[in-house]
Amino acid sequence: MYTYEYLKDFTQQFFIKMGCSDIDAAISTDVFLEAELRGFSSHGVIRIRDYFNLWKSGRVNVNPNIKIVHETPSTAVVDGDCGIGMVVGTKSMEIAMEKAEKVGTGWVATKNSNHYGIAGYYPSMALKKDMIGFSLTNANPLVAPTFSLSRMLGTNPIAVGFPTKNRLPFLADFATTPVANGKLSVAAKKGLKVPQGLIQDADGNPSVDPGIMKNGGTMLPLGGDYEHGSHKGYILSSMVDILSGVLSGANFGPFVPPFVGYLKPAEEKVGEGTGHFFGAMRIDAFQPAEEFKLKMDEWIDTIKKSKPTPDQDEILIPGELEHRNEQKLRKEGIPVIPAVVSEIKEIADYFGLDFEVRS
Amino acid sequence: MYTYEYLKDFTQQFFIKMGCSDIDAAISTDVFLEAELRGFSSHGVIRIRDYFNLWKSGRVNVNPNIKIVHETPSTAVVDGDCGIGMVVGTKSMEIAMEKAEKVGTGWVATKNSNHYGIAGYYPSMALKKDMIGFSLTNANPLVAPTFSLSRMLGTNPIAVGFPTKNRLPFLADFATTPVANGKLSVAAKKGLKVPQGLIQDADGNPSVDPGIMKNGGTMLPLGGDYEHGSHKGYILSSMVDILSGVLSGANFGPFVPPFVGYLKPAEEKVGEGTGHFFGAMRIDAFQPAEEFKLKMDEWIDTIKKSKPTPDQDEILIPGELEHRNEQKLRKEGIPVIPAVVSEIKEIADYFGLDFEVRS
Repeated sequence: MYTYEYLKDFTQQFFIKMGCSDIDAAISTDVFLEAELRGFSSHGVIRIRDYFNLWKSGRVNVNPNIKIVHETPSTAVVDGDCGIGMVVGTKSMEIAMEKAEKVGTGWVATKNSNHYGIAGYYPSMALKKDMIGFSLTNANPLVAPTFSLSRMLGTNPIAVGFPTKNRLPFLADFATTPVANGKLSVAAKKGLKVPQGLIQDADGNPSVDPGIMKNGGTMLPLGGDYEHGSHKGYILSSMVDILSGVLSGANFGPFVPPFVGYLKPAEEKVGEGTGHFFGAMRIDAFQPAEEFKLKMDEWIDTIKKSKPTPDQDEILIPGELEHRNEQKLRKEGIPVIPAVVSEIKEIADYFGLDFEVRS
Repeated sequence: MYTYEYLKDFTQQFFIKMGCSDIDAAISTDVFLEAELRGFSSHGVIRIRDYFNLWKSGRVNVNPNIKIVHETPSTAVVDGDCGIGMVVGTKSMEIAMEKAEKVGTGWVATKNSNHYGIAGYYPSMALKKDMIGFSLTNANPLVAPTFSLSRMLGTNPIAVGFPTKNRLPFLADFATTPVANGKLSVAAKKGLKVPQGLIQDADGNPSVDPGIMKNGGTMLPLGGDYEHGSHKGYILSSMVDILSGVLSGANFGPFVPPFVGYLKPAEEKVGEGTGHFFGAMRIDAFQPAEEFKLKMDEWIDTIKKSKPTPDQDEILIPGELEHRNEQKLRKEGIPVIPAVVSEIKEIADYFGLDFEVRS
């Protein structure tokens, strides 16, 4: 178990050792630690190794010149200069919010970036300014379109946040597949089965064995199969890919580069790096922010009055579970699994940094 | 079987007889007939009766004063003055596109409207101007949030369109439930079972009997159950409800009025009428439109190269099936089921209009 401060200090030092500026290191650290606190440990300090490997193989630029390459009053295309995704993402979201300040909304398509951590980090930046925030990203291909066997799309997440007055904000962040890929990997490592409807083998047979992902298997889109609406998951994943990849000039579909350093990117490129898409809408571009936020409280109170199924105590609003997780982990500490502790320790030794091995 | 022109002429006359201007009648007719051609007959001339009943009960304004009540360069809130949804929707989408012309994107939240037909009609307006289009609407409550038994949300659809160069446009329009409500109603009328994972009974038991929807049953969000990601369907439906309802000042969640004339609206109101949300993004606010459209062709060609499952011949792009349907129906004629023919005939008689009863 580690305190938030301990992991934060170490992560900050790690990014500085790779050559990041203090401010860029602080941004990347903040995204990783937010992931840990909200309970998305698949996007937290486990990613230190991935960025270390990318850096060692010369595939990430720790001092990028992030710039706008095309813009209008409400839009921009940002070139991330192959920077760290969290730095490129934060800068892009700031540009979206600056445009929203001026003309009501701001929309930024970003190319030439890398894995940007949890998608939900960026909408939460907007919440602090009484804005609605959106963030999307494409990702390396694992998902087959409905009725197909080919890895054509990523688990391409959507994140959205709506501000509130006296309630927790509505903050959602979800892969456009039934489950995130991280859950499948964990099940595969533990030799566990997964429910029907998440994956299929190389021939298109339904499977409960996550191990088939290493033998040509594919993830199914949200919905699972056609009669349960998997074409809608396929549409959502496609929409994220087009807005993040095609509109920005990044790679799209099967050409999106893998994040892990040990996998080589595809030889064929159709754009630059990984793509993201960000949106910010000023609430008072539609109605007084205070009125909207009170209405959001009313919306939340209404939904929470839903009658729960017999096995449940209450209905949750998106973001509520993550908030409870954060409160718990800030008090009790953040657990890190032994394999990740060992990886981080090796990287710490490489850089001559201290990192305590704790269980 | 009816020709496109025959149904178009009749529908136009119907709206004029209710008191619509020629132009408003033409707009509403175009939306209904587009629904027929694309194969969404649940949103075509079957809705003539619904609008007739709304009109007879004084719940729709056929000469609305549709106006912007709040705006910035890239946003507007539109008050539909309780007009016909297709008229209010078309005007709102036009405002979004005008704003996009000026500042790159336009975003319109609309309140005080009624059922606006197929959500996909509005993005196709944007396609013609080299814009990406979005359209969302809330709808009367049928869907239970994950782990609940209460009708809190509608089947709240999302529609999105991306322009292309030499391929059919990417045009998607889907309910945020596994299937549209229309399919359940048809199955219920025919006494057919539906697959597991679409509905639950009043106690939360999974059901295959669509008849339970009349006995306190609820539709499940896209994903079906929690382990298949139904919380993601719940998020999507909520996002549509908040953008369409809360942000515009319309009713939201369980307060959205029913469309059918024979059901009375809830006594409690939290806003005005039904709400929609529209978006338009000029392609050349991000990159030259020709380049993007060629890239979209490439995206489509890439996805279509997916290996199909053994029982399929090809992978479809959203909008492709609807396009084929349109080509077929324009040639062969549009079928209308006998029950709808009878309803329309009665309404024709009421107004002294000709309508041939055909099988």
